[in-house]
Amino acid sequence: MRLSQFFLPTLKEDPKEAQIVSHRLMLRAGMIQQSSAGIYSWLPLGHRVLKNIENIVREEQNRAGALEILMPTLQPADLWRESGRYDDYGKEMLRITDRHDRDMLYGPTNEEQVTDIFRSHVKSYKNLPLNLYHIQWKFRDEVRPRFGIMRGREFLMKDAYSFDLDYEGAKIAYNNMFVAYLKTFARLGVKAIPLRADTGPIGGDLSHEFIVLADTGESEVFYHKDLLGLETPTQAEYSPEQLQSIVDEWTGYYAAADDMHDAEACDVAESDLITRRGIEVGHIFHFGDKYSKPLGASVAGPDGKEAVVSMGSYGIGVSRLVGGIIEASHDENGIIWPASVAPFDVGLINLKSGDEACDTACTEFYGKLTNAGVDVLYDDTSGRAGEKFAKMDLIGLPWQATIGPRGVKSGVVEVKNRASGEKQELSLDDALKLLVG
Amino acid sequence: MRLSQFFLPTLKEDPKEAQIVSHRLMLRAGMIQQSSAGIYSWLPLGHRVLKNIENIVREEQNRAGALEILMPTLQPADLWRESGRYDDYGKEMLRITDRHDRDMLYGPTNEEQVTDIFRSHVKSYKNLPLNLYHIQWKFRDEVRPRFGIMRGREFLMKDAYSFDLDYEGAKIAYNNMFVAYLKTFARLGVKAIPLRADTGPIGGDLSHEFIVLADTGESEVFYHKDLLGLETPTQAEYSPEQLQSIVDEWTGYYAAADDMHDAEACDVAESDLITRRGIEVGHIFHFGDKYSKPLGASVAGPDGKEAVVSMGSYGIGVSRLVGGIIEASHDENGIIWPASVAPFDVGLINLKSGDEACDTACTEFYGKLTNAGVDVLYDDTSGRAGEKFAKMDLIGLPWQATIGPRGVKSGVVEVKNRASGEKQELSLDDALKLLVG
Repeated sequence: MRLSQFFLPTLKEDPKEAQIVSHRLMLRAGMIQQSSAGIYSWLPLGHRVLKNIENIVREEQNRAGALEILMPTLQPADLWRESGRYDDYGKEMLRITDRHDRDMLYGPTNEEQVTDIFRSHVKSYKNLPLNLYHIQWKFRDEVRPRFGIMRGREFLMKDAYSFDLDYEGAKIAYNNMFVAYLKTFARLGVKAIPLRADTGPIGGDLSHEFIVLADTGESEVFYHKDLLGLETPTQAEYSPEQLQSIVDEWTGYYAAADDMHDAEACDVAESDLITRRGIEVGHIFHFGDKYSKPLGASVAGPDGKEAVVSMGSYGIGVSRLVGGIIEASHDENGIIWPASVAPFDVGLINLKSGDEACDTACTEFYGKLTNAGVDVLYDDTSGRAGEKFAKMDLIGLPWQATIGPRGVKSGVVEVKNRASGEKQELSLDDALKLLVG
Repeated sequence: MRLSQFFLPTLKEDPKEAQIVSHRLMLRAGMIQQSSAGIYSWLPLGHRVLKNIENIVREEQNRAGALEILMPTLQPADLWRESGRYDDYGKEMLRITDRHDRDMLYGPTNEEQVTDIFRSHVKSYKNLPLNLYHIQWKFRDEVRPRFGIMRGREFLMKDAYSFDLDYEGAKIAYNNMFVAYLKTFARLGVKAIPLRADTGPIGGDLSHEFIVLADTGESEVFYHKDLLGLETPTQAEYSPEQLQSIVDEWTGYYAAADDMHDAEACDVAESDLITRRGIEVGHIFHFGDKYSKPLGASVAGPDGKEAVVSMGSYGIGVSRLVGGIIEASHDENGIIWPASVAPFDVGLINLKSGDEACDTACTEFYGKLTNAGVDVLYDDTSGRAGEKFAKMDLIGLPWQATIGPRGVKSGVVEVKNRASGEKQELSLDDALKLLVG
């Protein structure tokens, strides 16, 4: 993509309304634009990151055997009356009346709706286990939306729902998602750790939040230092026993956010206990028959008797992760994207656009990279060198390649790694090798 | 995908509520489920088709140089007050009040919002031309939603918006989208023809609907018989002059829907005039300064003077196309998907699941197809042969491959082409060659 044909409205100054770094950098990098309080449009650069994250989340859900569906944004209120949540849910639920005066709502979550789909079609234990997920916009009418897309009102979430005959089956489904989440966050290039989470009236120990560590995180987290050293599981498939042992390993170390942390009960030696801040980006939760019972989602079991199915839900904040990754990965000059989610792989800078030799060298190099499948943002504009460097640092592509009059003469390109800041002068061929990877 | 692990709730009987064939087949094939009037959930099979269509539309928009963004579903009413449409728009607009009593609406379209993005950032003619598009759910509160997703309330649409300095530029943008639409519909495997459409108070001739021909179409269309013989443009890029001559060629033949058809003015010989029915799946429209003027979207021109930009909009009904394609392509046994949008490439039928030889042969064949990148739905269930065949015909995958005890002995697989109905017995190797393509 040539920058001259792209839409990248970057800002030089910090916008006043942004209190946290991800919000500031997303506005400055031209990733988003506010539409109204807590509601944003995603501009081309931001949209690319959002899609990259969405696709990784999707692939890992598919690999884990979850099936993708798509439930609508607007739901009938009657369904929520069946579960009893229509009256319980507070003002965060956006209630809507249509032209025929029917009560509707903009879904803040989808337990009722997915249970309705299940009960309409699944009648036998033979069709279990089943895990249905979707990636859809949701709405929570926050009283005070803030921090950009981190605490917005309209947000994109992946939510999966598992259906099993009994608790034993539900536990396998839970462990399967636990492991899928470890893989997902590793692919997204972030260090996410699972924390014990509150199970409320449901009880049991099947509830974990996944948080990304970042100094600017919303909550304080406490964990055993060895937790960060654990290897992410890599196999495509695991048996139920293997899943359990991976979950046991990861949950064997102490890890809790401030709301669950109990200094008295925590038996980790002080020298082993790390305290940092974190941002919640995922939550998995076994809730048994909380929705299947009131909504009548049951199947005929192997013994012929009707059994209410045992359910769990598994969320990942897709749009929130865009901000979460920036909070965890930036410096004073801008964003530092992990390669897997970067909006482009390489930023190519033409130091003297309009100079025939520079234009030719850049166009050729751009063509070679593009043909090799590398996604390049080519700054072919007439801006000053300093501005171009600053803009590339701001938008945080993993690699920068710079070609100017001096380099053209000697046949070299300067390649900079955004994360390490390391620069090297390479021949065009060597640069190509490095960037194609 | 093994059918035993898939969620495909097919129906044997025609659902009573469905009046048209696409609605009936989508329900019977387990593609969608109604949530409330005119609002549907997309089940795994339907979701796959929806995504395939969405991706083809996206690729052709990107190739045409349009830039993808994503605007939110909920918009502030104030923006629509600026254009004057908030009060003009009837009850089809879903009006919402949030917890702070702010007026909002669920976007039925996005002219105001995209113009707001434009005016916030683009100040010079040097940043033109610009074409921004998004693929987002929209809502129109139809008084009587019907025909399944064909005339639903919550629907997925691609809408692009072009910005140019003057009418001449806007015309190039219009022609560029016209040609992109020809390519898009050809890739989707449907015969779509452009019809002159009403330009209302805007005037001029830059408004075309694209309709898919189907006997069950909502409107009557009249066109010159040679229109269907035109070749779809195939080049990656065209000059403005070439675009104009392609548009001239396609609009040189008479073509109009009943609302625009004038039997008196139509100079086509009776023997050359074809009358059929059609379904609108796209609409492109030049509307000049209709929104840019009231919203103050102007740029500094080459002469330094401020110029209000000239705009056009370009819609494709993505979810509507799922139904439109079915209306145009089905028989008495079910859907016949064009290969490009089919939910799977091949349906593999095991005639005797549980028989060791059959299971082994099927599993091997399934593995080979999958490894070659073919997307297979493998019916490994214990159903009867007749049921399996009927289900495959119903869901309409382009190819069916059947392996049974007799075939296993003689080393053959029966391959059926869903569209032609043609069957052939092939060796496993030859079948593989045919299906891998």
